Amino acid sequence: MASKPARQTQITAAEKLFRQKGYLATTARDLAKASGVRGADVDKEKLLWAIASRAADEFFAALRPIVESDEPAQLKLRHAIIAHVGVITRNLDAAAVYFNEWRHLGVRRRNRFARRRDEYEALFRAILREGINAGLFTPVDEKFGSLLILSALNWTHQWYKPDGPLTAEEVGRTLADFLMNGLYRTA
Amino acid sequence: MASKPARQTQITAAEKLFRQKGYLATTARDLAKASGVRGADVDKEKLLWAIASRAADEFFAALRPIVESDEPAQLKLRHAIIAHVGVITRNLDAAAVYFNEWRHLGVRRRNRFARRRDEYEALFRAILREGINAGLFTPVDEKFGSLLILSALNWTHQWYKPDGPLTAEEVGRTLADFLMNGLYRTA
Repeated sequence: MASKPARQTQITAAEKLFRQKGYLATTARDLAKASGVRGADVDKEKLLWAIASRAADEFFAALRPIVESDEPAQLKLRHAIIAHVGVITRNLDAAAVYFNEWRHLGVRRRNRFARRRDEYEALFRAILREGINAGLFTPVDEKFGSLLILSALNWTHQWYKPDGPLTAEEVGRTLADFLMNGLYRTA
Repeated sequence: MASKPARQTQITAAEKLFRQKGYLATTARDLAKASGVRGADVDKEKLLWAIASRAADEFFAALRPIVESDEPAQLKLRHAIIAHVGVITRNLDAAAVYFNEWRHLGVRRRNRFARRRDEYEALFRAILREGINAGLFTPVDEKFGSLLILSALNWTHQWYKPDGPLTAEEVGRTLADFLMNGLYRTA
């Protein structure tokens, strides 16, 4: 088994390669070369699983305290949006792999991944339901609504530039304003 | 050169394979096998270009008449959203390739693709600007606003099921309502 720093080097190299070339086109040789370990010691699918499950952990760790707080639903949703965008922008390579490459996991891990992702989406659905029940939000279909919100947030990994004009927090706030208020001018 | 129906068979096979496996992991042999032509006659990048530029043509063909109409901006945007979702859902494989695989085009075609995509986004920006100037829309950053709208629409290709409960038109209308009105209950 690789030492902890060596393991981290492998994961970082895999995040970059899986994002750039895609999981299927990345060879054990590419991974070995990029992380300086012997090709025979590289387990591609295990690396994909490590990246995907670590990203899932981070999404949950950021969202759980918000969902469990006593804030009203509109603040929960605002904070959830900012937190989600924060996780994406902190590691854009990992986020791209999480969103685009997970379907190449073996069937058991893929099912586990899909279950966790659904549990995560359920937290967003719960916030929407809370806001709808409180009369704060328009009674949209919760599944459709949370899917739409997450889609708008997840796309961030494709265009966000860490050295661009907007901080992650500003992107989160702007997305929250837009999704909650819509485009129509109300006043 | 392949005959027209043979060419179409090749393109359809490439759309499916590029979507499932990704462009880089799809071999000329896979393509030849799926479309029944000799491997030597398959030009992978040309097929990618054919798929991407045809999809671009369809997006433009659907949007142009809406932009050039005399409708007020809020109707233009609503119809643009429905039209865009319509193009995606009519050929989900092609849409997935258009969104995810174009970056594997050679540099000249990639630049051409990026220019056309920007021209297309500019049509959405023009609708937003029109609505903002008319005092109908909140003065959002047009670039950010059109990016957010397109992101929410483009994700459709990942979850839309042609045999699911919603027609493409219903998806488009629901997305338009959500993006234009936002989640807050206004009445």
